Formats: sequence, structure tokens, C-alpha cells
Amino acid sequence: MRVAILTISDSAAAGRRGDTSGDTIAEWCARRGEELVARETVADESPAIVPRLIALCDTFGAELLLTTGGTGLAERDVTPEATRAVIERDAPGISERLRVSCIDTFPRAALSRGVSGVRGATLIVNLPGSPSGVRDALAALDPIVAHACDVLSGRVTQHGEPAEEDQR
Amino acid sequence: MRVAILTISDSAAAGRRGDTSGDTIAEWCARRGEELVARETVADESPAIVPRLIALCDTFGAELLLTTGGTGLAERDVTPEATRAVIERDAPGISERLRVSCIDTFPRAALSRGVSGVRGATLIVNLPGSPSGVRDALAALDPIVAHACDVLSGRVTQHGEPAEEDQR
Amino acid sequence: MRVAILTISDSAAAGRRGDTSGDTIAEWCARRGEELVARETVADESPAIVPRLIALCDTFGAELLLTTGGTGLAERDVTPEATRAVIERDAPGISERLRVSCIDTFPRAALSRGVSGVRGATLIVNLPGSPSGVRDALAALDPIVAHACDVLSGRVTQHGEPAEEDQR
Repeated sequence: MRVAILTISDSAAAGRRGDTSGDTIAEWCARRGEELVARETVADESPAIVPRLIALCDTFGAELLLTTGGTGLAERDVTPEATRAVIERDAPGISERLRVSCIDTFPRAALSRGVSGVRGATLIVNLPGSPSGVRDALAALDPIVAHACDVLSGRVTQHGEPAEEDQR
Repeated sequence: MRVAILTISDSAAAGRRGDTSGDTIAEWCARRGEELVARETVADESPAIVPRLIALCDTFGAELLLTTGGTGLAERDVTPEATRAVIERDAPGISERLRVSCIDTFPRAALSRGVSGVRGATLIVNLPGSPSGVRDALAALDPIVAHACDVLSGRVTQHGEPAEEDQR
Repeated sequence: MRVAILTISDSAAAGRRGDTSGDTIAEWCARRGEELVARETVADESPAIVPRLIALCDTFGAELLLTTGGTGLAERDVTPEATRAVIERDAPGISERLRVSCIDTFPRAALSRGVSGVRGATLIVNLPGSPSGVRDALAALDPIVAHACDVLSGRVTQHGEPAEEDQR
């Protein structure tokens, strides 16, 4: 699975703090044996975010593009709007799963406005900004993300599969 | 409750496989004693799907229109977009419930992009394509669907009911 | 936290019944020690609802605006559409949490079409119409609403906080 990471954070982009959340995603890739094709950092500005999302999908050919940061309620949290501008089809159940998975253990996950969707053959998923939020979200993605990318890449066709489960 | 079934599947429409998922819904109707007013199959093409959705609502007068298939991430999965084109008001909590109900038992349910909403006096709900996915979804619909159709048909007015529960 | 309540109900606006749901929210405010800055009742008509939503945000300066009623499937349930017309950014995880929190105890919560979102520095959340639905929804809001308003008001900046948890 070809994975790209986009950290969306004013302070990380300005070098005022490290990118622990991006590190957490990179470690997850390594542990799973996924190929990290690109890793970038950008400030919380739509005109800066949108072209990077597009490039990571269309030029770098990521199958899975994970963003971290900018999904909250604050004025500069614009990741969901920037993501919506580039996806062609939404996949609301993925973001739903990320939030609902920690409904009891971390209620504030409900405040993440993150979205998920497909652009071409890339699945884009917005993860929250904090390292612990990223860890929760990656745990929720673990059992579904390989199948999602297999369907998108055409490695598994949803129709015509022998196993009924694969038709979902 | 007047129920219509629309199976959305290239292979079922072409006769290359049976329509086990549609059968599963029909059996659910029979078991509940619902009236099946129409059952059709259509290929995964928006220009084919949209007029059938409209006819099943407006001409056949279904109170509940259940679709199966075409809700996944693959390129030909266009059921959610076709459904959105015909509904007048969305009911996102229903599709949410269908996915979240099996969050532990079948994580891939999160990949279903199915939507729910109202057109006139018809509630439309997209179910996944596989028979097991349909079974899970019908189990999630069981406790809510009769009340939903009662409200839509005007048999129960949400306002002015003596029981407080009915005002929700 | 400056809280406003808008009860959206034909029968309450016409004085045909009391506003038990609004009372329930007011008691919740008192119990939490929140400041109730306004409480109004309006009929289920978008042209009546929209200006009141705007006034409660922009003129009364509510940090949290809770509506009750008009979120169901009936024809006159237009609260979600009226709310969508005034919010600048959606916060879907909040309404998701309200519904999913009672997925086992009150399945019909799935039929609430309520939305949540931000207008300026106000968080707007649609609660269902029945007193018991309101109680369930307030219980789901309890652990998240103070942090949400702190972020919106700028009392807590999501970026630049020492605690990592605050960055979500």
C-alpha cells in the first residue's frame, strides 16, 4: 500500500514544534510494512493545503493519504473543507468509525470534523492533530484500510468476487 | 408497510448471478408481514438507477424503498450519488446506525457509503450489496422502520401525540 | 458558558402545550451553572426559525445555542435545513454522538435528522423534541460541550497548548 502523510499545522510548518503526529503515522506504516511515498507539512491555510492534497494523490500516486491536524472547531481548522474540495466521492462511514470507536474512552473525538473520501484511486482520511488522537484513529483504520485500498486499486473487484463478504 | 426492493448490480442485471441479496430482503418482508409492491434489478449506472428510484417512490407508492448494492468504494459504486439525486431530505442517522451497529462484528461496514432519506412519503435506505451485509442492515432497521413509515405516512403525527416518546 | 435555547414546535408556539423540553434544557443549564442568555419559542417554519437562530448567535452572543424539536421525518420537521442555512462549518461528530450514544437504549434516536455546526463563535446543536430525547442528548453533550465552547471562544487555543490532548 503506497501511503502519503500530510501534517497540517501552523506550528509544525513554522518549525516551532516537532511533528510527533506525523511520526506516529510513519511508525504505523513501518510496522505494517507499507511503503511511505511522501511526507509533507503545510500550514493551516486552504490555498496551501489543497494543492498538496492534489499532488500527493495525482503526482505521488498514494493509495492512502492520511492527513493529521486542522480538524477541530477553531477558526484555523480548515482541513475538512480543503479535503472536501478535492475528493470526488465521500466515504462518511470511515470518519464515523474513527469518532465512534472511542465514544467511551475519549468523548472529545466527537469534536473532530474530519472527513474521508476518494480522489481517483486514492483514499483520503483526515486524522485528528494530537498524537493520541492519531493512535486511536489508526487503530480504527487497521482492520479496514487494506481492503479499502484493494477495492480502489482494482486488485479486488467488489462485483464478481467468489466470497460474498467481498461484495459489500 | 408497502415495500419496494431495487437491486443495483451489473452482474445481477445481466443475469450472470442470482439476486440473493434481493431474496434476503423479500424474505424479511414476508416474515414481517409487509406488502412487497415491486422488486426490480438495475445495472450500476446512474442514468438507469435514478428513474427506477423515482418510479418506485412516485408511481408504485412504496413507503419503504430498500436498495441493495453499489454502496462501496469501487468506481462503479454509484448508488449513494443516485439516491442523493432523488431524496428531498436526508436522514443520516439511519445509515449511521446501519454501519455502527456492526462496528465490532464487521468493521468493513464502515466502507459502505450508503445514504438514507425521504422522497415525498417514501423512506429510501441504501443497504450494502452482500447477503450478509443485507442481513446486518435489516437487523439494524427492524426496531425503527415501522415508526419511521408511520410518521411519514401521517398515521402518527410527531406533534400532538399523547405519548412524549412519539414527539422525537 | 452563555447558552441560548430555541424551542421549535408548532404546538408550543401556539400555546397549546407547555415547553417541557425547553424546561429540561434550562434545568440542565442551572445545574451546570451556565448563564442562560435567551430562551425563545418558534413555530416549525423556516422563515421564522432562521432569523431567530441568527439573532441568538449574533445579537445575544450565545456560545452554545441548543434547539429542541423539528428534527424528525415529518413534513413540518425543518430544523436541520434551517440550521444548515445559518452555520458556517459543520461538526457532524456531535450529532453522530447524540444519536449513537443511545443506539441500544433508544433505537429511534437514529430517526433524528439533527445537525451541529459553528456560526461565528457559537456552537449550534439540534436536540430532539421530546423531553426524554433531550435528556439523552444533554447527557451525551455533557463531557464535550465545555471544551468545544472554550476552543470556539479562543479561551483555549487548539494550537500552542502545552497539553497534547488539547490539540485534537
